[in-house]
Amino acid sequence: MTQRGRLITLEGGEGVGKSTNMAFVTAWLEARGVEVVRTREPGGTPRGEAMRELLLDPGFDQPLAPDAELLLMFAARAQHLAEKIRPALARGAWVVCDRFTDATYAYQGGGRGLDAERIGVLERFVQQGTAPDLTLLLDMPVDAASRRVSQRAKAGGGERDRFERERDAFFIAVRDAYRQRAAAEPARFAVIDAAKPLATVQRQLAAVLDQRTAAWR
Amino acid sequence: MTQRGRLITLEGGEGVGKSTNMAFVTAWLEARGVEVVRTREPGGTPRGEAMRELLLDPGFDQPLAPDAELLLMFAARAQHLAEKIRPALARGAWVVCDRFTDATYAYQGGGRGLDAERIGVLERFVQQGTAPDLTLLLDMPVDAASRRVSQRAKAGGGERDRFERERDAFFIAVRDAYRQRAAAEPARFAVIDAAKPLATVQRQLAAVLDQRTAAWR
Repeated sequence: MTQRGRLITLEGGEGVGKSTNMAFVTAWLEARGVEVVRTREPGGTPRGEAMRELLLDPGFDQPLAPDAELLLMFAARAQHLAEKIRPALARGAWVVCDRFTDATYAYQGGGRGLDAERIGVLERFVQQGTAPDLTLLLDMPVDAASRRVSQRAKAGGGERDRFERERDAFFIAVRDAYRQRAAAEPARFAVIDAAKPLATVQRQLAAVLDQRTAAWR
Repeated sequence: MTQRGRLITLEGGEGVGKSTNMAFVTAWLEARGVEVVRTREPGGTPRGEAMRELLLDPGFDQPLAPDAELLLMFAARAQHLAEKIRPALARGAWVVCDRFTDATYAYQGGGRGLDAERIGVLERFVQQGTAPDLTLLLDMPVDAASRRVSQRAKAGGGERDRFERERDAFFIAVRDAYRQRAAAEPARFAVIDAAKPLATVQRQLAAVLDQRTAAWR
């Protein structure tokens, strides 16, 4: 058994409850005495956050070219890996990350139609073998998730960013891409039914964490 | 003979006279009735300039990871190609660019020691066949170029940016990488002796432009 840490990623479209469940997963692991580093993509470091702002900034005349979007996303990921994820894993911490490369396949690949093989070129370039040990996919029908997002936008009164303004068709493609990835890699993925009440979702999460991490602790 | 435009790049280390000679090359082409689009890397578009600022910004605690630097560089290049260079070439304009991918091989490859094969992965990913028709390499010994940069820094009183603060050893490696690339691709490169007086440098440039572009006009 290795002493290195583990990388757990949380994935899913808008409105599936990622923030709430990130907190739950982190607390569950900490309660078991594990050092947890909680982080997110895109961003995760001050430099990565600055790249994230370039991705979301609507204040330019010309659209962001799809290749540039992909390269910025992986630039932030390279910084995140070098500055935060790899050092944490090296000292034995468990890293819980809100979105990782599966999100690039789902959003830029499934959603925007970029070629998965081109995403794979950058994935191999940047990760060089660092990959999630467990990926929790929060999955629910897009119409229900969209209703949650609309309610949140009204309640918060906040501006919806460029990604959030995309249409439901986009999110259906994103969900399909996520589900295909989960089906292709069942040993790494666990699909959680996020349409259920929160208590039920968290019972599913606890059961999965208990089962999948038993061998690692 | 094709109607598409041409891509001419100007390369060289710090202090070799790139700005002055960019203006000369542009004026020489315009005097021959060519539509010239003058641009530069990194940057070249508002989005690319924002990425350039991230590359040069010293205001972060942690250093920029080498892979992240390379990906940001190519993200700016992808935006530059999509938004400016390819549309200009498509309508038949000639694009004169202050630095392009050869600079990545020279600075990040030769200077920082990043693997040229890894740079090649991103070059092929981003350019997909768009490459310079002619590259003018302004070449001079590093000690003479450094003296020019020091004089300019004193005269302008301006802060020297992160790249400019690098030591001479770095610039010797950059120059070597440029010269090796020129030697490997003599049909594309023209090496200009930039240590000569300006009038002589510009006579060399005019002669090269006259000879290399004759078949294109």
